[in-house]
Amino acid sequence: MNRFNDQERRGLYHAIESRPIEDDVLARLIAAAHHAPSVGFMQPWEFVIVRDGGVRRAIYDNFNIANRAAADGYDGSRRELYDSLKLEAIVDTPINLCVTCNPASTRGFGLGRQTMPETAVYSTVCAVQNLWLAARAEGIGVGWVSILEPSVLRAVLQIPEDVLPVAYLCLGYVTEFRPEPELETRGWEKRLSLPELIHFDRYGTRDEPRARELLHSLKDDPMLEFERDR
Amino acid sequence: MNRFNDQERRGLYHAIESRPIEDDVLARLIAAAHHAPSVGFMQPWEFVIVRDGGVRRAIYDNFNIANRAAADGYDGSRRELYDSLKLEAIVDTPINLCVTCNPASTRGFGLGRQTMPETAVYSTVCAVQNLWLAARAEGIGVGWVSILEPSVLRAVLQIPEDVLPVAYLCLGYVTEFRPEPELETRGWEKRLSLPELIHFDRYGTRDEPRARELLHSLKDDPMLEFERDR
Repeated sequence: MNRFNDQERRGLYHAIESRPIEDDVLARLIAAAHHAPSVGFMQPWEFVIVRDGGVRRAIYDNFNIANRAAADGYDGSRRELYDSLKLEAIVDTPINLCVTCNPASTRGFGLGRQTMPETAVYSTVCAVQNLWLAARAEGIGVGWVSILEPSVLRAVLQIPEDVLPVAYLCLGYVTEFRPEPELETRGWEKRLSLPELIHFDRYGTRDEPRARELLHSLKDDPMLEFERDR
Repeated sequence: MNRFNDQERRGLYHAIESRPIEDDVLARLIAAAHHAPSVGFMQPWEFVIVRDGGVRRAIYDNFNIANRAAADGYDGSRRELYDSLKLEAIVDTPINLCVTCNPASTRGFGLGRQTMPETAVYSTVCAVQNLWLAARAEGIGVGWVSILEPSVLRAVLQIPEDVLPVAYLCLGYVTEFRPEPELETRGWEKRLSLPELIHFDRYGTRDEPRARELLHSLKDDPMLEFERDR
């Protein structure tokens, strides 16, 4: 059961190379994360670099149990499609990275966190997205594995109670980045139409003609190839 | 009380120009957000573009009440420093943007959200960070205002119960981007030392010499000017 079949090898991280990630590249990715904006300049993030095989095997076991339970929620052709997706690359990437958040940290002296304390965790997610984009620029694919039981993840990584595991990431060089998300290509979900997601001045005041007018330049925008054919 | 004093005009968005944001630029920013990665390709985000003066005035009133309460939590010189910070630009930017999330949406068929449902909101934050970076590239400053009472924000923007206001953003052209966060320059909080934030294989296994070794290339990395002088 440790070996993926051909279908499983396809997927989110297809064509992952075994090439290790050099220290200077990993350093740039983590520095990019560390330079994300944070509420009150709190910088609530920490980084657990996971290379150890035993630790990754334990995380992979966690994934398998959670994934089997999740798969049982689907029937028929959707179940088949689900089973064919590659939803993690825990043991076949050179580096896993757990990005954590200490939401109770006094760093930043609470600025901006009195009414919306959730912004501490949001800051950490901003750091993850910075890292994700930096990785893309370096030719490194990042998979965010959320099919994990957080309590088990905590136990395996020895994360204390006051620290939140926000993102568990698998990092590896890939030979190709697809123009569309794998889940779109494989027919799991469709890209939403952007004009339907826009409201004016108040929520619920959708005005699709007005939204289309606002967005009409995207079709010919040389900056946004990804929007051109939509 | 509607007019900012000289000190207030300094700050997070100093030197904001009155130049309006063109539709094609706003469209690019929102498209950048819409192309963020999302759990299960869920795309749980929506965008409320707020230009209406009355709506912004109501949000600004919300900020003022929340900010006075927050300010009362500080004493002495820190209170003085807090009072001198410009923490919003609600009425003096041409566009406010509220990014919302529908965490209960069935889009994405629940993929990746069985054990960590918080990833729906995290996806929305990834969209915000994409927008933030795109705005930087366009010369537009983004201020994330979290000193708001969410229930009031909901009422003003008529956001229904099942939708979460994740980020309230102020967008405007700025003449200058500082190399360091305003809160660092003004002495509110220091940049954390990156090697102290790195753990190996398990949380709590900090190894600063090893972390310094991993990160030592950053000092001379031509890609990361921001790390060079640290």
